[in-house]
Amino acid sequence: MSTLIKNGRVITAEQDYFADIFVEKDKITTLGANLTLQADKVIDAEGKYIIPGGIDVHTHMDMPFGGTTSSDDFETGTRAAAFGGTTCLIDFAIQSKGTKMREALDIWWMKGQKATIDFGLHMIVTDLPEAHLEDLNEMVREGVTSYKLFMAYPNVLMVDDATIFRAMRQTGNNGALVCMHAENGGVIDLFVQKALAEGKTAPIYHALTRPTTAEAEAVNRAIALSQMAGAPVYIVHLSSADALEKVSEARDKGIPVFAETCPQYLLLSIEDLDRPNFEGAKYVFTPPLREKWHQDKLWEGLRKNTLQVVSTDHCPFCFKEQKEMGRDSFAKIPNGGPGVENRLQLIHHHGVNLKRISLNRWVELVSTTPAKMFGLYPRKGTIAIGSDADLVVWDPNKELTISAHSHHMRVDYSMFEGFKVKGDAETVLSRGEVIVDKGKWSGKAGRGEFIKRNTYAGAWK
Amino acid sequence: MSTLIKNGRVITAEQDYFADIFVEKDKITTLGANLTLQADKVIDAEGKYIIPGGIDVHTHMDMPFGGTTSSDDFETGTRAAAFGGTTCLIDFAIQSKGTKMREALDIWWMKGQKATIDFGLHMIVTDLPEAHLEDLNEMVREGVTSYKLFMAYPNVLMVDDATIFRAMRQTGNNGALVCMHAENGGVIDLFVQKALAEGKTAPIYHALTRPTTAEAEAVNRAIALSQMAGAPVYIVHLSSADALEKVSEARDKGIPVFAETCPQYLLLSIEDLDRPNFEGAKYVFTPPLREKWHQDKLWEGLRKNTLQVVSTDHCPFCFKEQKEMGRDSFAKIPNGGPGVENRLQLIHHHGVNLKRISLNRWVELVSTTPAKMFGLYPRKGTIAIGSDADLVVWDPNKELTISAHSHHMRVDYSMFEGFKVKGDAETVLSRGEVIVDKGKWSGKAGRGEFIKRNTYAGAWK
Amino acid sequence: MSTLIKNGRVITAEQDYFADIFVEKDKITTLGANLTLQADKVIDAEGKYIIPGGIDVHTHMDMPFGGTTSSDDFETGTRAAAFGGTTCLIDFAIQSKGTKMREALDIWWMKGQKATIDFGLHMIVTDLPEAHLEDLNEMVREGVTSYKLFMAYPNVLMVDDATIFRAMRQTGNNGALVCMHAENGGVIDLFVQKALAEGKTAPIYHALTRPTTAEAEAVNRAIALSQMAGAPVYIVHLSSADALEKVSEARDKGIPVFAETCPQYLLLSIEDLDRPNFEGAKYVFTPPLREKWHQDKLWEGLRKNTLQVVSTDHCPFCFKEQKEMGRDSFAKIPNGGPGVENRLQLIHHHGVNLKRISLNRWVELVSTTPAKMFGLYPRKGTIAIGSDADLVVWDPNKELTISAHSHHMRVDYSMFEGFKVKGDAETVLSRGEVIVDKGKWSGKAGRGEFIKRNTYAGAWK
Amino acid sequence: MSTLIKNGRVITAEQDYFADIFVEKDKITTLGANLTLQADKVIDAEGKYIIPGGIDVHTHMDMPFGGTTSSDDFETGTRAAAFGGTTCLIDFAIQSKGTKMREALDIWWMKGQKATIDFGLHMIVTDLPEAHLEDLNEMVREGVTSYKLFMAYPNVLMVDDATIFRAMRQTGNNGALVCMHAENGGVIDLFVQKALAEGKTAPIYHALTRPTTAEAEAVNRAIALSQMAGAPVYIVHLSSADALEKVSEARDKGIPVFAETCPQYLLLSIEDLDRPNFEGAKYVFTPPLREKWHQDKLWEGLRKNTLQVVSTDHCPFCFKEQKEMGRDSFAKIPNGGPGVENRLQLIHHHGVNLKRISLNRWVELVSTTPAKMFGLYPRKGTIAIGSDADLVVWDPNKELTISAHSHHMRVDYSMFEGFKVKGDAETVLSRGEVIVDKGKWSGKAGRGEFIKRNTYAGAWK
Repeated sequence: MSTLIKNGRVITAEQDYFADIFVEKDKITTLGANLTLQADKVIDAEGKYIIPGGIDVHTHMDMPFGGTTSSDDFETGTRAAAFGGTTCLIDFAIQSKGTKMREALDIWWMKGQKATIDFGLHMIVTDLPEAHLEDLNEMVREGVTSYKLFMAYPNVLMVDDATIFRAMRQTGNNGALVCMHAENGGVIDLFVQKALAEGKTAPIYHALTRPTTAEAEAVNRAIALSQMAGAPVYIVHLSSADALEKVSEARDKGIPVFAETCPQYLLLSIEDLDRPNFEGAKYVFTPPLREKWHQDKLWEGLRKNTLQVVSTDHCPFCFKEQKEMGRDSFAKIPNGGPGVENRLQLIHHHGVNLKRISLNRWVELVSTTPAKMFGLYPRKGTIAIGSDADLVVWDPNKELTISAHSHHMRVDYSMFEGFKVKGDAETVLSRGEVIVDKGKWSGKAGRGEFIKRNTYAGAWK
Repeated sequence: MSTLIKNGRVITAEQDYFADIFVEKDKITTLGANLTLQADKVIDAEGKYIIPGGIDVHTHMDMPFGGTTSSDDFETGTRAAAFGGTTCLIDFAIQSKGTKMREALDIWWMKGQKATIDFGLHMIVTDLPEAHLEDLNEMVREGVTSYKLFMAYPNVLMVDDATIFRAMRQTGNNGALVCMHAENGGVIDLFVQKALAEGKTAPIYHALTRPTTAEAEAVNRAIALSQMAGAPVYIVHLSSADALEKVSEARDKGIPVFAETCPQYLLLSIEDLDRPNFEGAKYVFTPPLREKWHQDKLWEGLRKNTLQVVSTDHCPFCFKEQKEMGRDSFAKIPNGGPGVENRLQLIHHHGVNLKRISLNRWVELVSTTPAKMFGLYPRKGTIAIGSDADLVVWDPNKELTISAHSHHMRVDYSMFEGFKVKGDAETVLSRGEVIVDKGKWSGKAGRGEFIKRNTYAGAWK
Repeated sequence: MSTLIKNGRVITAEQDYFADIFVEKDKITTLGANLTLQADKVIDAEGKYIIPGGIDVHTHMDMPFGGTTSSDDFETGTRAAAFGGTTCLIDFAIQSKGTKMREALDIWWMKGQKATIDFGLHMIVTDLPEAHLEDLNEMVREGVTSYKLFMAYPNVLMVDDATIFRAMRQTGNNGALVCMHAENGGVIDLFVQKALAEGKTAPIYHALTRPTTAEAEAVNRAIALSQMAGAPVYIVHLSSADALEKVSEARDKGIPVFAETCPQYLLLSIEDLDRPNFEGAKYVFTPPLREKWHQDKLWEGLRKNTLQVVSTDHCPFCFKEQKEMGRDSFAKIPNGGPGVENRLQLIHHHGVNLKRISLNRWVELVSTTPAKMFGLYPRKGTIAIGSDADLVVWDPNKELTISAHSHHMRVDYSMFEGFKVKGDAETVLSRGEVIVDKGKWSGKAGRGEFIKRNTYAGAWK
Repeated sequence: MSTLIKNGRVITAEQDYFADIFVEKDKITTLGANLTLQADKVIDAEGKYIIPGGIDVHTHMDMPFGGTTSSDDFETGTRAAAFGGTTCLIDFAIQSKGTKMREALDIWWMKGQKATIDFGLHMIVTDLPEAHLEDLNEMVREGVTSYKLFMAYPNVLMVDDATIFRAMRQTGNNGALVCMHAENGGVIDLFVQKALAEGKTAPIYHALTRPTTAEAEAVNRAIALSQMAGAPVYIVHLSSADALEKVSEARDKGIPVFAETCPQYLLLSIEDLDRPNFEGAKYVFTPPLREKWHQDKLWEGLRKNTLQVVSTDHCPFCFKEQKEMGRDSFAKIPNGGPGVENRLQLIHHHGVNLKRISLNRWVELVSTTPAKMFGLYPRKGTIAIGSDADLVVWDPNKELTISAHSHHMRVDYSMFEGFKVKGDAETVLSRGEVIVDKGKWSGKAGRGEFIKRNTYAGAWK
């Protein structure tokens, strides 16, 4: 099976040139001017960009949370991702307290059997007795080269500083990367208790009880712990200018700190939590949305490379029945929102079209750096000889109104309902196979493979 | 009883002028040029400075620690203080876990009955169930308007972030001030365990297991907690440039953060911990001594008002039998060192004589700001009509070699053994009474009074 | 002649206490509780503050500018100053190009013969051939211990970098202080030419052609020149956050840089230049008023001691006939505005009453630091034995509406017309003599003396 | 004519993969795995990197200076460049005062007729009356899309702030880029005069009379002028940490400022100017070499992208007869040193081998960003379909000792004499033609073409 993509404008994190691309089986084998090679399939990309497929390093498919489960599984979620131009994602296996990480990995491998595109896994570590440190190395051998730890959610996911430090010390040896949910859970819980005690139960209090200072403090602490452990750290879903400042200061000192943000923090704000009729619940996730002025700072962070990655933290719950569980108390609203499908569209439109970032930087943020950071490069994240043919024919002129009525995620609302964007994926190839073409799905459940990732070491800047 | 001090050069935090000072009973009642008032006692201060008596806001007299007790009690310690020009100090009562603060206060009141100069008390809070928050208010009513909390020493003194936050929230209401021992105890304990497991037991490992990053992290956290609580915070015994930077950043943003350092951090370094024959143990206290280059940064902090106070953290243990308890393990060396007597001498010499700070700034650091910060001003900390006649006739030309052979502290070594300084207290008045005169002691145990302090609110800058 | 001020609350840059003050001739001779000394005159200050008289280090009385002369001379200007609680000012003698500084000094001495309060002089240097460097030393010997140089006004007052550097190198030796008007004149002139060429002649263009970047650049350059010359520098009338940032950065590095701002920059904004009917001309001075948000930054600078002094840059021109000279072109409007009378009122009200600064800091900004910086301390700027009895009985509760109808400056408008303030000078003593009492003038022309100032060296922080 | 490069490891600013490269005439036409295309010439690059040819944007061939001429002309200089892996350079035409830029351009075009590789030209502007502003646009039309201006060398090359501002304002419209030599010439001249007057004539005084503060000040001023003009600015040969800090601050604020440094500032220091026997003269160029500690800061700047480009400022003068002109006075030593041949070697070895920067970053600094910044991309600076086949087969394991005995520059000494490096160009193609192969030269004078450059607009980050 071979495919020839003709006349496209190839955009990578650095380049911008016209070429034909020849794909043999699952790999890119030739790039050339006016290639005359015979192909089983020819795609005309005249007037379109060809970009490496998007990589979303932060999703939660089929995830149990507070008595319910996120509404997308690996089939529906990866299918939606592909429609939006994302051809690989990294989800999270969750260690249950008192169990071995291996068990969690097995469970999530099973969930992933339905995936329609390639995927990797991070391991959420909730429990790390000295005796189990070797588990961390085992995960690396299995291609799970990153762990996530929580500084929030006391008594559920939160681990103490000593545990974090221990985990980081281990990554200093095995080359894995610690991903940190950075919020001071102890203080936040007191704010939450106080709010509830005062009868403040509406969704907006979810945000008001989680100040940006609680995030910035935890980011600073995570960095300090990583510095003392002699290991890098990756801050997930950074949401505020305060937290960003801590990352920036550390990077200025040459400390290896990395961070992602998500479209919701770049484009939505705390005002959305105040929507009437409990609709604010649609925007309840953690960290919460911030005041509008933070958005500019985050875009600036993307421009300056203080932030290196845009992921989604996709974790959908339907408004009906799921979000509604918190009608009486914001503390019972399942935390999370849908986003895996719209990442490339939103960053392309609000970043490139609105001249906040360059076209190259867009590719770098949504594909190249995610691949480099999490051990997938150059197999994925670029357009080069030998790379997986995870390719997107992107129509920069396609206009689109985002809506739950038309999206492919299995959830009954969109956080970006009514957003108009220009630029969308037209044709999507996963390992050489066309799975989306002009809105038509031709992928299938189970064709996605689990990727054993390399360690990230030294690949990024 | 009245006293007339003639011909002195009066130095306060702002002023520098010649005047006679008339003291009636315990108060300054008249300042004038060539006063002709009749006095019971006349002191000629020609060629000398008259300064407000020093105030040391951080001492530990008669304090139990790790199976032993600090070697100075309130009599010997306050006497030594007075010899060095300090006429007031604030010590720490320590709440025992599971008990009310009142009990600790009673114990320390009792200890203080022997004091030879006036003193106040801070309360060390080790336990703060929601139900006992009212205790904090009771302390304020008793004139104990500051609490100290520990972020270090897990399982002994350390409290968690939620407890700190709760205490701070209370001070936001009652006007008290939280004083913070800022080091990340969880990480430090892992460093200590690792060192001991590797057979690293010498005193130097006390410093090597407590990195500056652990201090800076905790300082940043303390500030964040205070900011979220809407209350100021005072960092005790700040020892490193890294920690200082956090204070500086916060103050630049207008956050009400204050900090003290101590002569040992300004003048000694980690190299002292490496002295042969276990002599390094003499320099084991917490936070530990740092690399030499930190000293300049701390002096700079004093100059720029990033640091507002110089205290001593006086907590003496004899080398013989006390420090020696840790021959086999640095972790068993009682933490603390003697210093209450030498503070004014050292800062005068190394600050004023070596042109790092002005004469006025010296007075501000060792007397005026301590008084303002801890609710003693203008009763103490300045030379003004109505103030307590806590006065020091300071001879700027007196040369002195600091030594355990001649000092008045009840401890068998000096951290500053052999240091030559120029400038010393010649005559010391406590509430109008001469208690030291040219090396002669005329004070007596029990003459010192417990001072009910005001809250600090708004007095400082 | 002796005066006793009873029952006042004495406020200095550091202190706050109750005392009686006894003045013998021109000096403060006794401070005491319930003084019973016999005095020729007794003032009851019950409920009032006693502060050291204000010192305004930046005024332009009787100054020729663009074909006219500032409307206050040394008599009317100093009288107005006194009404507002200012008992000493430093004006500027202006060297004419090609002449010796001595000539300018003689001219301004003559102008100063009419002064009603004490005054000093700075020398504006417009011309400094290598051969005349010695003139700078002569000025110091005459008590003119500060020079002002201009980086703006090409072909009129502007000197080049080499000249500035040469002057500063000289102050490094003789202890004098260079005061700098910091704006990039070359660029500003091009902006002005462009604006006029485009027919933009209204007062607002005075501000729009002098961007804050032009000020910040010049401040940075002045600091760099001073650093290379090994001499301190004092930035006059700093007006913008951008410029402030440069001062702040330099001070953080320990470079001896000082700066003043003025009430107009703290309280007025560029919008005032847009007032209809050419009234914007009343607010034409240099640097110009800035966007409103700069005000907060300047107040912050005062609070943090990035700014050390508040002066007025008092340089009044009547609206009628003087300001009106620029009806056709903003470039012809005489630059300057009246302010010498309202400084203490405005900073007390908008600073102390609105809780931006403390009472002590107010005194420090308007009196103590000006005295220390410009060689007048402790003769002036504090309340201490031996100091000049330049004293103000300040009524903190007096309410006042500022207006040209009631002010004492010889000018037909007020920049602060209609401003309501609380707090005003009630009684003003100049060297022991009451010259203002409850709105009544009892001073007279010529009683003010020229003060030979010391060099500032080392007096400030 | 076609060439096939097989088995190489392709390194661009982003990528790192194995591929064969097929070159048809002067362009890259195919990239592929195991290409079987027939080629006139086949190069086996097994074990080698293939990188885009280096681009040196700062050279001075055949340049008159102080009565002599730089010793390399366009033939010898470009040949040496090619031996070191550089396939394109941008030299400087110099406008003579009072003449049109066109005249200078004609002269330098003529000089360039001998070039062996492609070259572009910047225009040095020494004179810019309002009437000649249109000349700037003419230069852009001729492909000279950048101007250099000097803030140093009064009375020779220095222009005043108004001139700089005028030029920048023009680039704001025509898309050209101002390159700035940033040192405060006025102050430096006074330092030089003082040194000479004191008999300080040795080469070291060249450095001691040009303090880093003079560079930092000028950098700050250049940035401020560019900001007010609404145009970007590019700082040439940045040499010190102080100057770097100004660039960093500006970039942090989002101001479009760019800067290059050179190998000499990264690897040599002021101590080299102190070499005996007048050998210090070999290191006399401007800005001068700095204290050693600056080197780390500059490397850090390269790592963080505060510095975007490494150029050489190649401007060789022989030690004999040329440098010797300054035996009696450092001020007479021709300013400049040789470097065009060693740039890639030095940055590869001291950057990549010593792990200061990544392999990709090396390519970015020496080729890709220079091309993007100066309007040559994607024609040059990358390996992509359609790009010029300016390619270097780089042997990362080749060991080399730099020496005047073996280098190809026409100058009798090397600044890096004796430096051992690992990594060198093995084969060099210029527009598809092999001109260097394993040390053998096969290029010829005149084959290099003048490149009309595009404006840089928007191409970089």
